[in-house]
Amino acid sequence: MTPAIPDIVISRLPVYLRALERLSTEGTEVTSSHELGRLLGISSAQIRKDLSHFGGFGKQGTGYHIAYLKEQLRQVLKVERDWKVALVGAGDLGSAVARYRGFAERGFHITCVFDSAPGRIGKQVGPFSIQPMSELRETIHAQGIRIAMITVPAEFAQDVANQLVEAGVLAILNYAPINLKTPVNVRVQYIDPVLHLQRMTYYLPEDT
Amino acid sequence: MTPAIPDIVISRLPVYLRALERLSTEGTEVTSSHELGRLLGISSAQIRKDLSHFGGFGKQGTGYHIAYLKEQLRQVLKVERDWKVALVGAGDLGSAVARYRGFAERGFHITCVFDSAPGRIGKQVGPFSIQPMSELRETIHAQGIRIAMITVPAEFAQDVANQLVEAGVLAILNYAPINLKTPVNVRVQYIDPVLHLQRMTYYLPEDT
Repeated sequence: MTPAIPDIVISRLPVYLRALERLSTEGTEVTSSHELGRLLGISSAQIRKDLSHFGGFGKQGTGYHIAYLKEQLRQVLKVERDWKVALVGAGDLGSAVARYRGFAERGFHITCVFDSAPGRIGKQVGPFSIQPMSELRETIHAQGIRIAMITVPAEFAQDVANQLVEAGVLAILNYAPINLKTPVNVRVQYIDPVLHLQRMTYYLPEDT
Repeated sequence: MTPAIPDIVISRLPVYLRALERLSTEGTEVTSSHELGRLLGISSAQIRKDLSHFGGFGKQGTGYHIAYLKEQLRQVLKVERDWKVALVGAGDLGSAVARYRGFAERGFHITCVFDSAPGRIGKQVGPFSIQPMSELRETIHAQGIRIAMITVPAEFAQDVANQLVEAGVLAILNYAPINLKTPVNVRVQYIDPVLHLQRMTYYLPEDT
């Protein structure tokens, strides 16, 4: 087992991986911390330091072999394998998420979709037949699912999170605009595009 | 003009604002750094330190008046006003973004939607008629738009960003899975849900 790596380093590895995948697609075979730094707006020293946590990825002066580094990062992040994902909430947002191809292309396969609205149960969203919340626990348990996405309105999100945690989910991607309380062993990440917009308006001129 | 506030502090203010808006909706009038800390999983010391950058928000022992603090944060972040937003890319993802009500509810109004595919020009997406890229510069300039969202495929995103910057856009919310190069005065924020999933799989047990 690798020694514990700081969370902030882990949070940057997917960004490195995405850049490496892009360089790879463009036919590049070798890169450097300087090139990655320019692509990502991160200092090359930071990149070298982050990657040094895993040891042996690159040699001074010869650069990083992209195929090898990609494979190493994918193993460290455990994304060299596929993951099953449960989706809760089949409204407009949930439907868009269910149809988004970018998840499966990168190894995250939604395998079940749940909703509490009786009118939605049994309907199709993309390739999925919407299941009632009463089937959530058994389905997640039976499929050994550890990852879920929440796309319900804010007022229902905490209750849904509780049910997911009880069912054995350990990682939640929450699209509802509310912070969730979960046990310490359960990871939560948030998608709230308005927060990102609000992080930028501070820097805009007043006069527009 | 307020003295420069560290970017990391600015990045947390929208999270505080969202929590305060929620407490407000629930009828709460006064809160404390401890309560906010519990809600957000941030230490109360961190919250007090962040808010101290603006001075005078709370008094020791009496807590924060939510309505007042909300108003102050909204002013600091410049979200007490409404903003116009241009959207580029009217595929599946762009259409979902165009129809998402959460932007307008929180003061970000999409006012124009662009796409390069001839088959999409003139079609409706939500309340918008899709415009050709040839109209991007003039429309953005005429409306004084400073904020744009990019929902085109990765390979077109940099070119779109260049056009937006030329048209006067200073803040870009990029949904394309690629890092953008922009001038230093242009802010970019990224929405890539797969990166968030990849930040969590590291912590999952192997055996699932």
